[in-house]
Amino acid sequence: MDRVGAAGSSYGTTGPLDGTPSRRLLAAAELAVSPAALIDLAVVEAKYHALRAALPDAHVLYAVKANPHTGVVRLLAGLGCGFDVASPGELKRCLMAGATPDALSYGNTIKKESAIAEAHRAGVTLFAVDCPMELEKIGRAAPGARIFARLGVSGTGAEWPLTHKFGCTIEAAVDLLDEARRIGLQPAGVSFHVGSQQMVPDAWRHAIHRANDVFRQAARRGIALEFLNLGGGWPAHYATTPPPLEAYGEAVYAALRQHFGGSIPKLYVEPGRYLVADAGIVVSEVVLIAERPHERVPRWVYVDAGIYAGLEETSGERIRYRLLVPGPARPSGPVVLSGPTCDSADVLYRHHVELPLDLAPGEQVIFLSAGAYSATCSSVDFNGFAPLTMQCV
Amino acid sequence: MDRVGAAGSSYGTTGPLDGTPSRRLLAAAELAVSPAALIDLAVVEAKYHALRAALPDAHVLYAVKANPHTGVVRLLAGLGCGFDVASPGELKRCLMAGATPDALSYGNTIKKESAIAEAHRAGVTLFAVDCPMELEKIGRAAPGARIFARLGVSGTGAEWPLTHKFGCTIEAAVDLLDEARRIGLQPAGVSFHVGSQQMVPDAWRHAIHRANDVFRQAARRGIALEFLNLGGGWPAHYATTPPPLEAYGEAVYAALRQHFGGSIPKLYVEPGRYLVADAGIVVSEVVLIAERPHERVPRWVYVDAGIYAGLEETSGERIRYRLLVPGPARPSGPVVLSGPTCDSADVLYRHHVELPLDLAPGEQVIFLSAGAYSATCSSVDFNGFAPLTMQCV
Repeated sequence: MDRVGAAGSSYGTTGPLDGTPSRRLLAAAELAVSPAALIDLAVVEAKYHALRAALPDAHVLYAVKANPHTGVVRLLAGLGCGFDVASPGELKRCLMAGATPDALSYGNTIKKESAIAEAHRAGVTLFAVDCPMELEKIGRAAPGARIFARLGVSGTGAEWPLTHKFGCTIEAAVDLLDEARRIGLQPAGVSFHVGSQQMVPDAWRHAIHRANDVFRQAARRGIALEFLNLGGGWPAHYATTPPPLEAYGEAVYAALRQHFGGSIPKLYVEPGRYLVADAGIVVSEVVLIAERPHERVPRWVYVDAGIYAGLEETSGERIRYRLLVPGPARPSGPVVLSGPTCDSADVLYRHHVELPLDLAPGEQVIFLSAGAYSATCSSVDFNGFAPLTMQCV
Repeated sequence: MDRVGAAGSSYGTTGPLDGTPSRRLLAAAELAVSPAALIDLAVVEAKYHALRAALPDAHVLYAVKANPHTGVVRLLAGLGCGFDVASPGELKRCLMAGATPDALSYGNTIKKESAIAEAHRAGVTLFAVDCPMELEKIGRAAPGARIFARLGVSGTGAEWPLTHKFGCTIEAAVDLLDEARRIGLQPAGVSFHVGSQQMVPDAWRHAIHRANDVFRQAARRGIALEFLNLGGGWPAHYATTPPPLEAYGEAVYAALRQHFGGSIPKLYVEPGRYLVADAGIVVSEVVLIAERPHERVPRWVYVDAGIYAGLEETSGERIRYRLLVPGPARPSGPVVLSGPTCDSADVLYRHHVELPLDLAPGEQVIFLSAGAYSATCSSVDFNGFAPLTMQCV
């Protein structure tokens, strides 16, 4: 993990796109009652435009699950962004925030038939599938809907892979699209997901190759697919700095040209983390510092945010947030960083964290780039602690 | 995992204490809108009496974090039970449900100074510590309070160990109690926790031996400790059947006699899981079944409860609930059991689960002994799904 905590508050002036917290976020943090989750909508907007610049032909479907705050959804709806929704709850939130049903893609491959019917009644026409039973449900509950098949691809290179649970083979995708046509649905496209926080731009190459196979085999059966959904995976700035977004754009377009040649289909992307993570922070406060002499790292720092209160993605140390202790730089040393509950699973980081040696209860420890998958994953009231709520600044 | 799912609904008549769901729970499950969490207060009461019988000299402090439902707290308060609270939120819930402040133990060793002050104002006099900084805070915020030192003990034998994050050495415990006296607090006792879902009754032997060392060394400094808190760890009935509660009582008393001889101190126990787990169930509904031909277990069953909606303890397959599919027994086979969100971490069990081969969407899969650490750990709205709420039957 970067030693940002040790370095104190000397921010660069390189702008908000590199994960540096905005001045507005830091000013709000000073006033925040801890624990707090804050998001700067100006950064979300800047990230949206950066993604549009890197993938100019792709229509953006924001993965609402990353941060369903109404402010975020309303901002993006106003920019002309579409939405990838996972449930009727997310669907309603988008419609209430000003999105129109034709801007929504029901991208969860696991849907109750009643939820499909609810989306159909609300005017949603685009649904994901990766197996025959899901297609049957859509055929019954959303007659005439447009269908895209989610293809399984390798999650190698991703810090949070999404393989196994989702996606089908090339042959199964073609069969699903063919069967969709047979039962009165419209076979419309193919999607894949290379894994969340994908650090290797080339991950899209292989996936695009596989998707092209679906397009070709479908064409042989007389099915002209309309779009390719490149999924999510576009990374945020955690402890390891990701390659620049331009490298992702170049890898994607190189693969598209190689496999689709002159007939590149309509493109969608489904960023979640990319749009909101760097725009947000989680502000915590030191509750206790204890020396545990028999531990490998004896110094334990307990803060008031934790696995159950907004930092669920630290579980297994999969997402390593950069940390910031406001104020001048001070000598620091290694610590175990822990949440405040009576549960031993609520330990954030056992490795790679250094914090000031003279840190004291009441001081803030700020988790940077924490605008995605944070407040929305808070528990309702574990240990009697209120859930973290996201606030726009 | 037991093949209860395959065995269907032939319940024994051995009563509710062995983890068999009560008739009332099963009748309510038939009417429940899935996902649902249900708890039978009659079973909680029976478990309370069973624990009192096995440990007749111990005063019970219910670990509210296991299930903070007001119905549970009110029932136990009425039975004369005390409460182990983790936060001001839990403290208020207990007082609102009829508990008196003298029945409360603030057992979380990680407390904001403002939270200590709030508890002190509310009349709470008993606080846990395991390090000097926490003691200083209590000295300032709760003058005159009674203090107990939490001793670190091995978590071997526990399915959810609580070592590392909590507890101090014997020497540190004695020093803390001595220092408490020096700053005007009352050194009152010692606690330990042998780990949640502790399957080995003998785990208490070693811990009681260590606690006795604290009593002896404190006595040498002129400190007469009042009580020993035997903590939690008393098990529920998950896939592996635990030893009978009587075996735990015998092991505890044998160790007490061995180490404390004729001067056994006042005893506390802090059951959470034991009192509520077997009294509750989580009712889920099958959403989708997919064949994933390249997986080790190709058949995936997706239900509408998951890691983010009440089944957080399945994370890492640490807690293995017994499963029940209502109706007659049917041929079954191995499946991967998964939650409904767009997150690959939301997979419940990859191993040891068998479900009927002809299972269909809409059928219930019931998680037995799921009254502890379930609804309270639900996420607020991940993927737009409402949190699971606990209902009394």
